Amino acid sequence: MIQTQNFKDIVDQYKVIFFDAFGVIKNYRGLVPGMEKTFEYLDAEKKKYYIVTNDASRSPIQLADGFHKIGLPNIKYGHIISSGMLAKEYLDLKVHDGIVAYLGTTNSAHYIETSGLHTLPVSQINDSNIDQVNALVMLDDEGFNWFSDLNKVVNLLRRRNIPTIVANTDLAYPLSSKDVAIAIGGIANMIETILGKKFIRFGKPDSQMFMFAYDLVREKMPVGKKDILMVGDTLHTDILGGNKFGLDTVLVYTGNTLATEAETRINATGIVPTYICDTAVVDM
Amino acid sequence: MIQTQNFKDIVDQYKVIFFDAFGVIKNYRGLVPGMEKTFEYLDAEKKKYYIVTNDASRSPIQLADGFHKIGLPNIKYGHIISSGMLAKEYLDLKVHDGIVAYLGTTNSAHYIETSGLHTLPVSQINDSNIDQVNALVMLDDEGFNWFSDLNKVVNLLRRRNIPTIVANTDLAYPLSSKDVAIAIGGIANMIETILGKKFIRFGKPDSQMFMFAYDLVREKMPVGKKDILMVGDTLHTDILGGNKFGLDTVLVYTGNTLATEAETRINATGIVPTYICDTAVVDM
Amino acid sequence: MIQTQNFKDIVDQYKVIFFDAFGVIKNYRGLVPGMEKTFEYLDAEKKKYYIVTNDASRSPIQLADGFHKIGLPNIKYGHIISSGMLAKEYLDLKVHDGIVAYLGTTNSAHYIETSGLHTLPVSQINDSNIDQVNALVMLDDEGFNWFSDLNKVVNLLRRRNIPTIVANTDLAYPLSSKDVAIAIGGIANMIETILGKKFIRFGKPDSQMFMFAYDLVREKMPVGKKDILMVGDTLHTDILGGNKFGLDTVLVYTGNTLATEAETRINATGIVPTYICDTAVVDM
Amino acid sequence: MIQTQNFKDIVDQYKVIFFDAFGVIKNYRGLVPGMEKTFEYLDAEKKKYYIVTNDASRSPIQLADGFHKIGLPNIKYGHIISSGMLAKEYLDLKVHDGIVAYLGTTNSAHYIETSGLHTLPVSQINDSNIDQVNALVMLDDEGFNWFSDLNKVVNLLRRRNIPTIVANTDLAYPLSSKDVAIAIGGIANMIETILGKKFIRFGKPDSQMFMFAYDLVREKMPVGKKDILMVGDTLHTDILGGNKFGLDTVLVYTGNTLATEAETRINATGIVPTYICDTAVVDM
Repeated sequence: MIQTQNFKDIVDQYKVIFFDAFGVIKNYRGLVPGMEKTFEYLDAEKKKYYIVTNDASRSPIQLADGFHKIGLPNIKYGHIISSGMLAKEYLDLKVHDGIVAYLGTTNSAHYIETSGLHTLPVSQINDSNIDQVNALVMLDDEGFNWFSDLNKVVNLLRRRNIPTIVANTDLAYPLSSKDVAIAIGGIANMIETILGKKFIRFGKPDSQMFMFAYDLVREKMPVGKKDILMVGDTLHTDILGGNKFGLDTVLVYTGNTLATEAETRINATGIVPTYICDTAVVDM
Repeated sequence: MIQTQNFKDIVDQYKVIFFDAFGVIKNYRGLVPGMEKTFEYLDAEKKKYYIVTNDASRSPIQLADGFHKIGLPNIKYGHIISSGMLAKEYLDLKVHDGIVAYLGTTNSAHYIETSGLHTLPVSQINDSNIDQVNALVMLDDEGFNWFSDLNKVVNLLRRRNIPTIVANTDLAYPLSSKDVAIAIGGIANMIETILGKKFIRFGKPDSQMFMFAYDLVREKMPVGKKDILMVGDTLHTDILGGNKFGLDTVLVYTGNTLATEAETRINATGIVPTYICDTAVVDM
Repeated sequence: MIQTQNFKDIVDQYKVIFFDAFGVIKNYRGLVPGMEKTFEYLDAEKKKYYIVTNDASRSPIQLADGFHKIGLPNIKYGHIISSGMLAKEYLDLKVHDGIVAYLGTTNSAHYIETSGLHTLPVSQINDSNIDQVNALVMLDDEGFNWFSDLNKVVNLLRRRNIPTIVANTDLAYPLSSKDVAIAIGGIANMIETILGKKFIRFGKPDSQMFMFAYDLVREKMPVGKKDILMVGDTLHTDILGGNKFGLDTVLVYTGNTLATEAETRINATGIVPTYICDTAVVDM
Repeated sequence: MIQTQNFKDIVDQYKVIFFDAFGVIKNYRGLVPGMEKTFEYLDAEKKKYYIVTNDASRSPIQLADGFHKIGLPNIKYGHIISSGMLAKEYLDLKVHDGIVAYLGTTNSAHYIETSGLHTLPVSQINDSNIDQVNALVMLDDEGFNWFSDLNKVVNLLRRRNIPTIVANTDLAYPLSSKDVAIAIGGIANMIETILGKKFIRFGKPDSQMFMFAYDLVREKMPVGKKDILMVGDTLHTDILGGNKFGLDTVLVYTGNTLATEAETRINATGIVPTYICDTAVVDM
């Protein structure tokens, strides 16, 4: 098995830390034990940190609230960069009027609202408004009827040649120690294959996600890619994306990748983290 | 545009005709006008014919009933070869006991029943019976709750390493002149991608479907592949599968492939039918 | 690790045995030690056997010669079923005149020759004969210049909408204990992707390969699928194909799948052999 | 057919123009007639422009030389952003010592040289230096022996788990009005499939390419994405990439996408440019 390193020794070499949320800071049971110490240390050392997450089901404010509830009071919405924020930027820049149809909860749709656009759940699209639908955003796997609304999406996209944004590239996400749930990224794959089209995907490992975070950091301090560390539990999103963007990366064993299988998976995929740690806990 | 040929001139050169059902004999409006004359002619000429269909949602008897209702009284269940029959053969040969879980209507499950096996809808799988589930069959896109049962299927297949049979390879099927519906083959693709597994698929263009039909014909008369004509409306199932199996093929314009786009599609896909006809109607 | 079974105990339950060649009977070092005893036993017991191979680089006669040289004198060309034989059957049935262009050695092309057709290496296609080229067959990764001939193939298939047959579905094959070579199936994938077309592939796991063998057996003796055992070293060709066709299957550890990784791979792929044996040697 | 717009009317609305090179500014015959007027106009109006190209076969200096030779003297190497520059940035940031093996011409390798690293053609990798190889870069389809070096790459990547960078994502590129050539991106696909790994790809439509250009522009002037126009001839690289990054896009008919097929392709792919023009020529 691979020899892991001490997370504090690594963190001390960087000015800015990007964290994945699920599998690094929290999991289906709540806070990863000890992670409160990591954020206390980062605050004390005045290091910048961002949570870079493929979770587009809630707004940054709601995501920050979630961290407060599990014992991380200092994580603010300004620390959070979600794939949903890139979906919103796309709509701001590229869709100027009409209706944005969506798959997801009302909550998830709330924060993609942008001036001049009207958001509407796919279930409410009908013959009288279909011609005003100028974009479709897939936000979350909940909040809609899969049978009727997925069939409706296929036919909407056959009639209206509009941009379709997938705000979460994950295929599935963990529900408990043994069960997973199909994510909206998996559903989006199915609809792309049926239609023979390619949707616009935001989320790790895509570099636009890292660039969005990098731009935010640079507004606050002069910093290069060499000063930033990406911490994640998933090889093909966090580590692949971080590596490609030019960041050093840490794989931790508190989520998707177990210590027992890390070596096999790293060899099979060719995705090699700069460092490996048991957890992202700073233990002093 | 490509010059089409007269269907009767072609049929006269073959002893056995294989027909696709949907888009050739019938469509969402009912019988393709004039097709009753084709079957009268085939009966009069004592030519053998089979309907080779990816429809696993109903039994051959029910499918034959459907033909009777639209005015084709002489099509018997013995004329029908469906991908569901291959699923049943697989279970007969390879699964010897326990439960066969299924996605589909009760009707679709009825005819995959085989001695020694108990069929059960995915919704009824639970902790007490999951260890007896020895196969999963995906039959139809209706008859179950997509959200709860597709998530259940993903977790069933993570716990039980069992054969999964997809009895319909189509991604979507037409509902009306403008709308389509997602087929169980499209759903199966999504679950395969999420799990990283390859399911067992029966249905055109797979040659096992044509072989099943070819074996049935040869039980009744000595015949070679050169004596058989495959008639279909879809390039990548009927025509590709027929060509690969070594049969001559006819593309008709009464279904999936419109006269206006046939040439473009044939060039783009490289799937070239032996003949092209407007319809499969024998007009005397 | 999985408990393996004795090969003789399994063989005794079947009338007909299908063997993969490479990784089961022989490997890059020559005969798998002891395999001569298996064929002596099968001959003594009057069991039928066939070698079902994706090797289209040589004719059945040449393949049989290869077995004689490593100490298996009783394997005749009639025992051998190769994907190249299916390519030849396709040409016989579906291509009636003109030139068949090929990638491969002269040897490999020799046995796809069929009456009325002229075979020509891709390198010899030029403006004066390109219009007579009515099919392309990819036989082997040797015998041609990759740079010039693969580029030529791409442009040939852009100008001539002809059937393209891939007579070996393997992506790579072993050269030594540590090195592999790119196979023609891997090259064919690249060209398909560039052109956006789907070629006609013969070879395991495709059922047409098993059907060809099954038809040959039934010409000699009345036999059902339950009487046939498929023996292979590769999950996604031998075992997947055998299972799907309805045969019982044995995985052996003398080739592609090592004892140490079999369990992981079986779980990851969902391809489950009926039995697992260390080797296909019958030891009495 | 779609009504095209006047390129000058569009250009006048933006401060910065990104151009694709091949199919927009030049093609296999040389300069696209009239394009010299476009650059004269941009210079006169003091608009910034960049050439954003997937061509990693030569350095920006050599690419600029090429533009000078066809009559565009004012295009400097500082105007050029190539996927090869991203490969170099990756090596600078992520590979600190040892050998960088490459596929391509000596020329293409020259400009990825970076301090501390030694570049070596794949042909010169052997048992004595393989352990020092810390990265592989695929630059160009020329300059190496396809048969021996592609097989060598497969075995190199089986032994050394190193980052592999593909500096050109194109599958093929045009050679003349009727012929194309296989590009290194197509070859990379084949090797990824054989190995089951995912390489690091730089080049349009990936957003890292656009971000690199966007960062360069912002060093010189304060500018937002709304001020930038992307001009290209290819839907799935220039237009898809530009759209996703949030830029307005122009499709021109001087390259990959013909006027006669634009509407069909836009509908089939769902990739919709903001504008369509016959050419990128500013005609006053």
